[in-house]
Amino acid sequence: MEKVDGVYERRLKDIFVMAVPKTVFITGANKGLGFHLVKHVLAKFKPEVVFATYRDESRSKELLDLGAANKNVQLIKLDVKNHQSFKSVAQTVEAATGANGLNLLINNAGIASKYVKLGQVTYEELHDNFETNTIAPLLLTQALLPQILKASQGPAPPGVGKAAVVHMSAILASIGGNDVGGMYPYRCSKAALNMLTKNMSVELKKSKVITIALHPGWVKTALGGPKAPMTPDQSIEAVVALLSQLNESHNGKFLQYDGKELPW
Amino acid sequence: MEKVDGVYERRLKDIFVMAVPKTVFITGANKGLGFHLVKHVLAKFKPEVVFATYRDESRSKELLDLGAANKNVQLIKLDVKNHQSFKSVAQTVEAATGANGLNLLINNAGIASKYVKLGQVTYEELHDNFETNTIAPLLLTQALLPQILKASQGPAPPGVGKAAVVHMSAILASIGGNDVGGMYPYRCSKAALNMLTKNMSVELKKSKVITIALHPGWVKTALGGPKAPMTPDQSIEAVVALLSQLNESHNGKFLQYDGKELPW
Repeated sequence: MEKVDGVYERRLKDIFVMAVPKTVFITGANKGLGFHLVKHVLAKFKPEVVFATYRDESRSKELLDLGAANKNVQLIKLDVKNHQSFKSVAQTVEAATGANGLNLLINNAGIASKYVKLGQVTYEELHDNFETNTIAPLLLTQALLPQILKASQGPAPPGVGKAAVVHMSAILASIGGNDVGGMYPYRCSKAALNMLTKNMSVELKKSKVITIALHPGWVKTALGGPKAPMTPDQSIEAVVALLSQLNESHNGKFLQYDGKELPW
Repeated sequence: MEKVDGVYERRLKDIFVMAVPKTVFITGANKGLGFHLVKHVLAKFKPEVVFATYRDESRSKELLDLGAANKNVQLIKLDVKNHQSFKSVAQTVEAATGANGLNLLINNAGIASKYVKLGQVTYEELHDNFETNTIAPLLLTQALLPQILKASQGPAPPGVGKAAVVHMSAILASIGGNDVGGMYPYRCSKAALNMLTKNMSVELKKSKVITIALHPGWVKTALGGPKAPMTPDQSIEAVVALLSQLNESHNGKFLQYDGKELPW
């Protein structure tokens, strides 16, 4: 390979500065896709620390066991609806990550409303879905933004090795792709999350922070049900492979697990 | 004109069953675009009744004067955030419209958040924007749905003369068209309103209820500011002309005042 205008050095740099995150934060990590994200992120990226949040010890045995067995997992008890606690969460992250900052935030915690028609939607479901699926990711990202911006000044190329925010969305959030209806609170709150994604991608582009909305596929979870074609392992293996390849061309996009772009 | 397979009668019927609403409901009607909607709807459609909501007498002089001078205007004091009051509002509408139902609901009341970056967004602004811009239109439509469905059984062709719900959205709600950022609470809540629009259009299609999201243009109002190129009269004259032409081909679309379709 010839050295032409520094291309050779840049390629070497890309190879040696591995595009893996040293520090990762995952919400709703105690079960379902969140727990599998922790496992696959540990296996694929071998980060120094994965902050893994859970709400309730009694429903988090697997994660608590994993945390006890793996010194790189730092457990944080957090109800994402409790935004008053985000300041202390941010202090915990800052204390652990210092000047290197936080490379990868995955806003995974979410709730789903039942399939009901317009006549059956309740205020409580609307309120809870917006609080958990839209407001919580926004305010948690806000609280962690100083650490994310520190990470964005690192030497890695743009991607999860530098700074990225992944919002766990769903194909049900696609307005253009919606030909089934129902699930008003879930669909509306996740469409709002998609707007958050696009808005962040515009604001943080100059800082080389990559923001995406991600559809993990139709997966056998509490939400997806037993008829879903993919297991959580299959979904999250593909998701983590996709994350490892993120670059600036993905910024502000709505991607499914295999990298296919979805309509807003 | 020859009578061929009943085409002649159908054309006559289309001409004589004028596609104008007899009953209209407009929220946030005391000022800005809402007040102009009342005026232009009265002038263009000459409906039997326009329900016009306002929050505060002290900021509603023009509307209160119009209501005092025009027996077809029925004033309703309503804060759309107060969804507990929607049941009694629905009873008022049912008492006035009976078996004919409600032809046209325009969810116009809305609030806007300031232009701020992610770091300055507050929980209070997020909460207020979702409550007013998304949850209120959903729950008010839910409360009025029985009257809208009654109207949908009328003889008029699909359109505002039969049954239609118009959600006042904004080009700032377009995720695909967003290359400026900022205004997180407003943009997210209006993107969620666009999802509500699409979801309703799917559910209510078989009932011949037409649902659209509408961008009124950039208008000289409290939100649009003095640099906006259109006056409220110019905007709403175009909007009401567009409404008069609504048909099933428009159902579930995001349209601007001149009929141009916008990206989600």
